[in-house]
Amino acid sequence: MTIYLDHAAATPVDKKVLTVMMPFYTEHYYNPSALYKGARVVKSALDDARSDVARLIGAKPSEIIFTAGGTESANLAIKGVMDLHPDSNCIVSSIEHEAVLKPAKRYNHTVAPVLKTGLLDMTAFEALIDEQTVLVSIMLANNEIGTVQQLKTVASLVKSIREERQKDNNTLPLYLHTDACQAPLYLDCNVARSGVDMMTLNGGKIHGPKQSGILYKKSSVILQPQIEGGGQEFGVRSGTENIASAVGFAKALSLSESHKSERVERVSKLRDYFIEQLELQFNVVVTGHRQKRLANNVHVSFDNVDNERVLFSLDDSGIAAAAGSACQASSDEPSHVIKAIGESESYATSSIRFSLGRDTTKKEIDYTLKALTSALTA
Amino acid sequence: MTIYLDHAAATPVDKKVLTVMMPFYTEHYYNPSALYKGARVVKSALDDARSDVARLIGAKPSEIIFTAGGTESANLAIKGVMDLHPDSNCIVSSIEHEAVLKPAKRYNHTVAPVLKTGLLDMTAFEALIDEQTVLVSIMLANNEIGTVQQLKTVASLVKSIREERQKDNNTLPLYLHTDACQAPLYLDCNVARSGVDMMTLNGGKIHGPKQSGILYKKSSVILQPQIEGGGQEFGVRSGTENIASAVGFAKALSLSESHKSERVERVSKLRDYFIEQLELQFNVVVTGHRQKRLANNVHVSFDNVDNERVLFSLDDSGIAAAAGSACQASSDEPSHVIKAIGESESYATSSIRFSLGRDTTKKEIDYTLKALTSALTA
Repeated sequence: MTIYLDHAAATPVDKKVLTVMMPFYTEHYYNPSALYKGARVVKSALDDARSDVARLIGAKPSEIIFTAGGTESANLAIKGVMDLHPDSNCIVSSIEHEAVLKPAKRYNHTVAPVLKTGLLDMTAFEALIDEQTVLVSIMLANNEIGTVQQLKTVASLVKSIREERQKDNNTLPLYLHTDACQAPLYLDCNVARSGVDMMTLNGGKIHGPKQSGILYKKSSVILQPQIEGGGQEFGVRSGTENIASAVGFAKALSLSESHKSERVERVSKLRDYFIEQLELQFNVVVTGHRQKRLANNVHVSFDNVDNERVLFSLDDSGIAAAAGSACQASSDEPSHVIKAIGESESYATSSIRFSLGRDTTKKEIDYTLKALTSALTA
Repeated sequence: MTIYLDHAAATPVDKKVLTVMMPFYTEHYYNPSALYKGARVVKSALDDARSDVARLIGAKPSEIIFTAGGTESANLAIKGVMDLHPDSNCIVSSIEHEAVLKPAKRYNHTVAPVLKTGLLDMTAFEALIDEQTVLVSIMLANNEIGTVQQLKTVASLVKSIREERQKDNNTLPLYLHTDACQAPLYLDCNVARSGVDMMTLNGGKIHGPKQSGILYKKSSVILQPQIEGGGQEFGVRSGTENIASAVGFAKALSLSESHKSERVERVSKLRDYFIEQLELQFNVVVTGHRQKRLANNVHVSFDNVDNERVLFSLDDSGIAAAAGSACQASSDEPSHVIKAIGESESYATSSIRFSLGRDTTKKEIDYTLKALTSALTA
């Protein structure tokens, strides 16, 4: 038996997703750039997937770039802008994923601080934007501590600065990118409503295939292509299209949009019950914002506990959870996110992230609580 | 009925490949960087796939970088080297795929000419290498005209220049990259035997999944990562690993290695029969080298014929073939490969590429010859 509480790291591919993918492996395998009938069927499936994704996030089909996943999309957003403006600068929040932080480090950049809740320090953020800033990247929902940013407020601020610039005849662009990889199952990802210029989505976190994803890119955004060749994806991302992946991603996104409010209600109730019981039964501190929080995120720090020991003990009880992001699990570095919210290294090494799934049950949470009792008293 | 003669553009995924991929979608979906049992199973499958690929091409597992396909691999090879040596130069042959040509154009580069056969002009090539050259990229087998380069000769030349440099205390590296995407089903892709420093392979052309592939990178080669983030793939290529794709690629490569000599013999006989009949029945010129040629490539130019019209007519008869590369099919530009071998634009627009598959039959070729007769006399 596995109780899987690491949905922020990976999700199983939905059977409905797999069903729509399958014909593109053995039957409709043609190169969509070819001209014969079979290839046109494939091209049309790709076009449909693109239109579906566009409709689901409130964009135009020509604004959807299919990529090989969230990391590539975030890299394309950052490098794609900064390569065209090497003398300008970008601003990223201190709790961005490494897929944003590392590319940003190659350019003039500043790191915007967050509050203890993980919310962006808006005053400090605003002060960092100067007349040379061309890009800001603020993630919608943090993958480790679950804090959900007030993205509309950020977008409004960016918009007002953009308008001021026009008055000052500053012709540099100012784009807002958001890494929304953790968001679609639980949050609104409509770009028309949020007002972002670019958005990264990742199929592997929403019951789609791994290394599927998109970069939403408003028509007005100009990007330097990062993977060049045959000129696919409007010239922005070359390589023979992975149709199975694109249609799988579109289906996964579509499933994430359906019954979302019921899902959010059910999972957030379970999250709140889990947090309540953790606080009742153990000596824990809840990380991040109590309300502005992903419906499925439970990140707590136990008092002076070696999280690796607890995780191995949970594993032995058939429970899969994590110390933080999966990427960081393989390194021995403490989480930069925990550091950014002002917590200590010992807070980090006593932390566990439980990320619930759409199918997680109360029974599983209760079993996990029991297993935690054993692990912590052992 | 479809007679598929465009295997250079795309291949169906082998059922055995799909079988090994399937468990990683719904069952073993865990993030391989996580630490619990289920994730370690996935990590181990990834390690096995890497070891298999390494063994099949005569490399070490740590020299295999899984990527999202051939275009990404070629970009990583070119940009990965040139970003670290921005003041140096690279040399690419004039018949490289756009996935090599376009990245090269961003740096100091020269284009090495080829002979009418498509073989590299070795004298001209050697003369282009100067003390600032850090990278040469020569494709093993051309995707359009099928010419197979004498890669060992190129590797020997590169090696001798490297040795001279050491005597001259020139510490710049000099790497040889080869785009071998079209090669594994019909040619030797062993890097220990060929002596290349980097090699790009693409699963989508060898009955593996699309956007699967590797960059082989000799341990001594240092690359600037192009997609950064969680530090996967030895830090060279970040992003949660696509295990289904990696194991699928490894299986496809393994199948390409088994019974290769029988496959080459069977398909090249069919190719020779096809060419012989084309020359007998029509007014055609065979493009490329007659002997140093991919076993499955038949590229001919008809005398003053509109290839698009012929292709549409073949399509109506259930035959899928191409004017050149699929990438170019969507653009109206004449092939840069045909231009590079010194042929005219009208030669290009009268050309058809038939790329046979491992399962192509004589009956299909005979049917195609008949359909061509109808198409050309209509």
